[in-house]
Amino acid sequence: MVRIGIDAMGGDFAPRSTVLGAIAALENTGPDTELYLFGDRSSIEDIRTEAGAGSGTFFIVHCSETIGMEEQAVSAYFRKNDSSIAVGFASLAAGEIDAFVSAGNTGAMLVASMSSLKMVENMPRPCISVELPLISGKKLLLLDVGFNADCRPQMLFRFAGLGVAYARSVMGIGSPKVALLNIGKEAGKGASLYREAYALLEDGCPGFSGNIEPDRIWTPGYDAPDVVVTDGFTGNIVLKQAESVYSVAKARGITDSYLEQFNYEAYGGTPVLGVSAPVIIGHGISTPVAISNMIFKAKKIVEGGLIEKLPIFAT
Amino acid sequence: MVRIGIDAMGGDFAPRSTVLGAIAALENTGPDTELYLFGDRSSIEDIRTEAGAGSGTFFIVHCSETIGMEEQAVSAYFRKNDSSIAVGFASLAAGEIDAFVSAGNTGAMLVASMSSLKMVENMPRPCISVELPLISGKKLLLLDVGFNADCRPQMLFRFAGLGVAYARSVMGIGSPKVALLNIGKEAGKGASLYREAYALLEDGCPGFSGNIEPDRIWTPGYDAPDVVVTDGFTGNIVLKQAESVYSVAKARGITDSYLEQFNYEAYGGTPVLGVSAPVIIGHGISTPVAISNMIFKAKKIVEGGLIEKLPIFAT
Repeated sequence: MVRIGIDAMGGDFAPRSTVLGAIAALENTGPDTELYLFGDRSSIEDIRTEAGAGSGTFFIVHCSETIGMEEQAVSAYFRKNDSSIAVGFASLAAGEIDAFVSAGNTGAMLVASMSSLKMVENMPRPCISVELPLISGKKLLLLDVGFNADCRPQMLFRFAGLGVAYARSVMGIGSPKVALLNIGKEAGKGASLYREAYALLEDGCPGFSGNIEPDRIWTPGYDAPDVVVTDGFTGNIVLKQAESVYSVAKARGITDSYLEQFNYEAYGGTPVLGVSAPVIIGHGISTPVAISNMIFKAKKIVEGGLIEKLPIFAT
Repeated sequence: MVRIGIDAMGGDFAPRSTVLGAIAALENTGPDTELYLFGDRSSIEDIRTEAGAGSGTFFIVHCSETIGMEEQAVSAYFRKNDSSIAVGFASLAAGEIDAFVSAGNTGAMLVASMSSLKMVENMPRPCISVELPLISGKKLLLLDVGFNADCRPQMLFRFAGLGVAYARSVMGIGSPKVALLNIGKEAGKGASLYREAYALLEDGCPGFSGNIEPDRIWTPGYDAPDVVVTDGFTGNIVLKQAESVYSVAKARGITDSYLEQFNYEAYGGTPVLGVSAPVIIGHGISTPVAISNMIFKAKKIVEGGLIEKLPIFAT
């Protein structure tokens, strides 16, 4: 049985989007999945009833507080002990659920990840990751996509280890090809952070294939790596720019099944890596479809045994 | 009279692409423009004759050497005194031409810019810039797009000054709106470099409107800034990713006049800013169309009096 916790109060359209997303997800997850919704019981029940779903659809863990999307993350998380995020993480840390997903306050999710969960060995801080859809049909794991704006070379090396573990356990790639995002192909290119990270990766990362320039990621026909490592500042820039392709295509009246995939709804959220339990953060604007996809991704991470496979390598 | 120098030997398809690009450009520049081609006289003459152009089409400054695309920039530039890049820059420094454009070895172009030209007051290093096409039809100047992978906050502040001068003199925007590329809207977001640069810009940059996230740049209907400042590492990543939109669209069989503009040929190259004369660097793969557009851009920069307007502000 896979038990997935959902922050029912998280996101701009919560709890409607989260309750409807949970109901929709259950149509595809099968009987081996239990969902636990953390939030205001009566609101959740109202929406569930309205949607025509029975009381046995999912479990509700009542929480009397909610952390707002714009609240200062650290103080809100520690002040609101009965918030859906705080109670959800306590459940996760206690092993009552196997994964926790939220489209709520990202800062609070990250504070909660660091303060209530153990870190993976040798990981000083978590990072967040995303599976980018390539034109070839394959996915590419990019990390960090936003948690660590200032990185040291050692951190990039460790992100590579998390990425390799993720690629093996969740993406099903036995020997993932790893690359470092950079502004030139050759070793010695880029900012000093990248020159130093390159040396560490070359020394200690199995499957390391060198630098990759961002246009290469998107080049049709290019044998792209499975895991691309970057710092959280650059990774967030790349992710946001990739997502904007979808809105540009829409504005230009272009319908294309590949460009559709840049709709954030399809991603299944951004898994937090480096902590001792699966956590997925979604966009604030998450719709029921996005919530469903986050639930599917969480299930895949639990079933793949990602956490048990960490750390892959360390210096 | 505007006198533009062209590195006839620069680029993967040179000298054919450069000679044909020069001939094509002259059809639109009018009689107030003189072109000077630096390179091997007989090769240039052969291609000119083949193209049916007369001997008075442009001036040829014979150079006996060429710096290869993959040569180590610093040593090649200083060793090859009679290379088209070295002679072209000497002409530019001596005031014999008003601007110099090349699709040749980028590293050699940057070394030449720094060693043969004076720097603008208070600018320790040049930067390179590009006018990105927005969906609204307007252009946005992004800088630095690749010269300074490691930046200090002060450098970002000075790039803003160069950007303002460029926007006023070349883009015709009297009071340009300036923003800092970042991973969050609010002050205090992003890497430490960006937090410090924000404070400097807020204090001393007229028209500073705060941070901009990269998805906003591309958001239809958003009132985008005219100048966006970033470090050379991040800027190069953004530029390369933007250019890849064109190849993705092509591979998907999408024809769209806006996406077409991400074809590097349309850009007119990347102007080098911060030096005391107009210099434009093009892609190695530049075609005649790209060379023509670089020539037009160079003319616009000369006519706009960019250099005379520098520096705009300094701390």
